[in-house]
Amino acid sequence: MVKTTQIEVSTQGHCHIVDMTDAVRDALDRLGPVDSGTVVLFHVGSTGALTTIEYEPGLVKHDINAALERVAPAAGHYEHEETWHDDNGHSHVRASLLGPSLTVPVVDGQLALGTWQQIVLIDFDTRPRRRSIVCQVIT
Amino acid sequence: MVKTTQIEVSTQGHCHIVDMTDAVRDALDRLGPVDSGTVVLFHVGSTGALTTIEYEPGLVKHDINAALERVAPAAGHYEHEETWHDDNGHSHVRASLLGPSLTVPVVDGQLALGTWQQIVLIDFDTRPRRRSIVCQVIT
Amino acid sequence: MVKTTQIEVSTQGHCHIVDMTDAVRDALDRLGPVDSGTVVLFHVGSTGALTTIEYEPGLVKHDINAALERVAPAAGHYEHEETWHDDNGHSHVRASLLGPSLTVPVVDGQLALGTWQQIVLIDFDTRPRRRSIVCQVIT
Repeated sequence: MVKTTQIEVSTQGHCHIVDMTDAVRDALDRLGPVDSGTVVLFHVGSTGALTTIEYEPGLVKHDINAALERVAPAAGHYEHEETWHDDNGHSHVRASLLGPSLTVPVVDGQLALGTWQQIVLIDFDTRPRRRSIVCQVIT
Repeated sequence: MVKTTQIEVSTQGHCHIVDMTDAVRDALDRLGPVDSGTVVLFHVGSTGALTTIEYEPGLVKHDINAALERVAPAAGHYEHEETWHDDNGHSHVRASLLGPSLTVPVVDGQLALGTWQQIVLIDFDTRPRRRSIVCQVIT
Repeated sequence: MVKTTQIEVSTQGHCHIVDMTDAVRDALDRLGPVDSGTVVLFHVGSTGALTTIEYEPGLVKHDINAALERVAPAAGHYEHEETWHDDNGHSHVRASLLGPSLTVPVVDGQLALGTWQQIVLIDFDTRPRRRSIVCQVIT
């Protein structure tokens, strides 16, 4: 049995990392008490991604972006920007490399996360956005 | 309830990015009308990966490969190539970093993709291949 | 229907790549005979990740780490290490980029892996750890 809800969040772009863990817990509550099941999360759109991280300022404000600057620098050359005359080629590349989907077990009524492991959305775009994550629970 | 089918596609290798969105929709049609559920996609093999992207030529023909050249350059040194006397060390590394699995919700009978977000297979190998993706729908 | 078990493994850190394929098969056996279904795997903790790879020494002992050194070098500067006065900033960054979740179909009683494709845990931390993977089967 699959139940679906949606999570909305406002983001700032530029590698803005948002802790979604409580929002996922709230979504689970809305979908009914879940003792055991699987949570499927999917980021709608091609310039954001989902993963987990220890949500502390060093990683969130600096280290993730610094690493991705080595892979897809914001100031690099992107053919994507020739196509659309915009500035978010690096945003698309980073989002595709990280991926839009994340799957998290629920065990004994709790998300099976580590103590220092939070669910995050990373918005790689270059402007504020309203983002949607589809949240499903399979039981 | 889990239903399974397979999607076959011919690829050219060398970071060939193939839009699989319509093939996934066709697979869903074969598995029966799905109003609400979860699609699980898995790339069989260790030199290809699945993700989503805005499928436009700038990203697909240039930008993704350019970024991955910084991480795992095609002309780099790979111990893998010493093992097998082949030339696809970078293909394996790239595929492992992106990952073989992708999970996409179905909501109101539609894949929950953004308007400019397509499901793609990326073939990192160094020769044409016949690729298989296992497609499951959970309802 | 979702059934859950846990897989425990001892790791050495420093990009230690452990073949988990047989452990996942054992977990499937414990969860009952599964002819058709979906296996959901989740790494608990923020310095390890799951993916698939051809498990051979060149990739496992050298090539994956060499690529990730280009993205998040072990000897680089990390604000995370300022926060905690530790040395595993690169471990967190690498784990977040690869991701903690992996989904693998079961078809005709077998994991739908390629011949040279194994399920692996990569431990990026800087010391030996006892790791847990939550393993669920959806049927």
